[in-house]
Amino acid sequence: MSASKALFSEQLKEAARFLREGDDFLVVSHVNPDGDAISSTLAVGEILTQLGKRFTMINDSGNPTKFAFLAGDRIILNDSLHPSVSFKQVVTVDCADYARVGKVMERIPEGTPLLNIDHHRTNDGFGTVQLLHPDAAATAEILYSLINELSLTWNRELATFIYTGMLTDTGGFRYANTNPEVMKIASELLQWGVPGSELAVRLLERLTLSQVRLLQKGLGSLSFSHGGKIAWICISHSDIEELGATSDDMDNLVNYPRNIEGVDVGILFKEMKPGIFKVSLRSAGEVNVAEVASFFGGGGHIRAAGCTVTGSLEEVVADVVREAGKAWA
Amino acid sequence: MSASKALFSEQLKEAARFLREGDDFLVVSHVNPDGDAISSTLAVGEILTQLGKRFTMINDSGNPTKFAFLAGDRIILNDSLHPSVSFKQVVTVDCADYARVGKVMERIPEGTPLLNIDHHRTNDGFGTVQLLHPDAAATAEILYSLINELSLTWNRELATFIYTGMLTDTGGFRYANTNPEVMKIASELLQWGVPGSELAVRLLERLTLSQVRLLQKGLGSLSFSHGGKIAWICISHSDIEELGATSDDMDNLVNYPRNIEGVDVGILFKEMKPGIFKVSLRSAGEVNVAEVASFFGGGGHIRAAGCTVTGSLEEVVADVVREAGKAWA
Repeated sequence: MSASKALFSEQLKEAARFLREGDDFLVVSHVNPDGDAISSTLAVGEILTQLGKRFTMINDSGNPTKFAFLAGDRIILNDSLHPSVSFKQVVTVDCADYARVGKVMERIPEGTPLLNIDHHRTNDGFGTVQLLHPDAAATAEILYSLINELSLTWNRELATFIYTGMLTDTGGFRYANTNPEVMKIASELLQWGVPGSELAVRLLERLTLSQVRLLQKGLGSLSFSHGGKIAWICISHSDIEELGATSDDMDNLVNYPRNIEGVDVGILFKEMKPGIFKVSLRSAGEVNVAEVASFFGGGGHIRAAGCTVTGSLEEVVADVVREAGKAWA
Repeated sequence: MSASKALFSEQLKEAARFLREGDDFLVVSHVNPDGDAISSTLAVGEILTQLGKRFTMINDSGNPTKFAFLAGDRIILNDSLHPSVSFKQVVTVDCADYARVGKVMERIPEGTPLLNIDHHRTNDGFGTVQLLHPDAAATAEILYSLINELSLTWNRELATFIYTGMLTDTGGFRYANTNPEVMKIASELLQWGVPGSELAVRLLERLTLSQVRLLQKGLGSLSFSHGGKIAWICISHSDIEELGATSDDMDNLVNYPRNIEGVDVGILFKEMKPGIFKVSLRSAGEVNVAEVASFFGGGGHIRAAGCTVTGSLEEVVADVVREAGKAWA
């Protein structure tokens, strides 16, 4: 067994002990929860139910409408709507640092025993007990191991929570973190009757009307340079206001220019306030877009990065495209 | 072992014998080949290479540009460009009936020994030897079993061909045919170094410029009725001409109206010739769109159906939407 496997195995035992010995838990994930955050919260709730423990699930922003069907009649409290809850222990899921729980932090007295379950490589190791696995594709994948460590009973719902976290954090089994272990676990979970196809449609393919309208506006602005290697679209502040678009609505837009045949760098310019542009950059190939973003004081990864640039639309586009074009200089 | 499993096991042995005993094969799939057709053709080529056989791969329309990267330096002949090839045995892959091989049929003398490998439930059992498995998600999944039956050596390329067929025929592990067996095989194939993420981007996410322009045009026509339960988009004949759009370019468009929150039936009206509309219907829920299509002389499945309707755009839309709306009458 490798050192990291041995460590994880030891952490699993400690996490299991933490859950078995406690009796009243607060389960919380990060602000603006995604599929893995909500699924992992619900999965820990199921684990605690099977262990016969009291628990409360909470989130800085409650359970977004998009994920309501997952919870069924389970309740993830919206922090701001429930001024008092009692608990003795805390479990955080999918939070790389403690501040990620948002305003929920203010409820948690200093010194409260806390189990930190997470898969982010950047996790800073906060809490009393840690269950951390940076090679896991999702926090839900770590919970899969924890459920087996606790010898709990698999059923359709528990399997659905774990599958959902893995489905969403791998972009529908498409990102580079889709490894043999992910697919092996997915295979096992489907045997419990997980409605995989329904989850994919609801969580990966559903569009809001606002997203569709934004897409149409955005595609109308599609432009190219450098022989078609750079493509971008722009969403003006007035478009955002007119369509009542949220940041969530715009998340996926940058993939359209990036996905066009022959394009190496796709860019989205979002005018969040007049003259202030959030710029998202995506690389389809070799270009390191983190370098482009960092030139403007932003950051990110080789294939996905972002920055904020101020100026007129024409200036901002010209500056960012020129910088991205240096890849071929 | 169930009767169907025993039959498949027997067919695997016969198919293996067919390949071992022959010495010069023509490998062919269906007209307008999709990912599974091309991958299965290439996989049979690899199988025959490992068995030390002569073979020629061919297709009615050759290997589409989209799949060229898969083949590398392997050649799938374009039927119309190569007037003569010699062979003694034939292997068809992913063809539900013999006519699906298209004009390649004219090259094959009557009485030529033929192995028919396919996963379509409607396969009519043509050929000398059959290897048919209607529960397989893809023909490539059947080839996975055949490769193991033949005790061949797995490697990155062979695994990539099999993975690709399964990836594309399950819509990226999203359709209802994504079962535990599919994911288990995918897990095993990834261990051979299959570039799963790259395949997903290239085969499932890449858009042609013409597709993007069509999408923009189409979204501009987005309309709703029945309280948002029916949504449709229209592509006029002049749009198709102006953008030089092919049928392939338009394939995915109908998913946009269907995927919008609250929509039960998504419809695409494509004016193929002036006044002649190909109508594609997709159900996101309970409505049986095959019934709607059959009212207009078309057909299909519960969730995906189509028909051709003639008239002015206004008439055709009104007629089809009225008929689809009867689901809530």
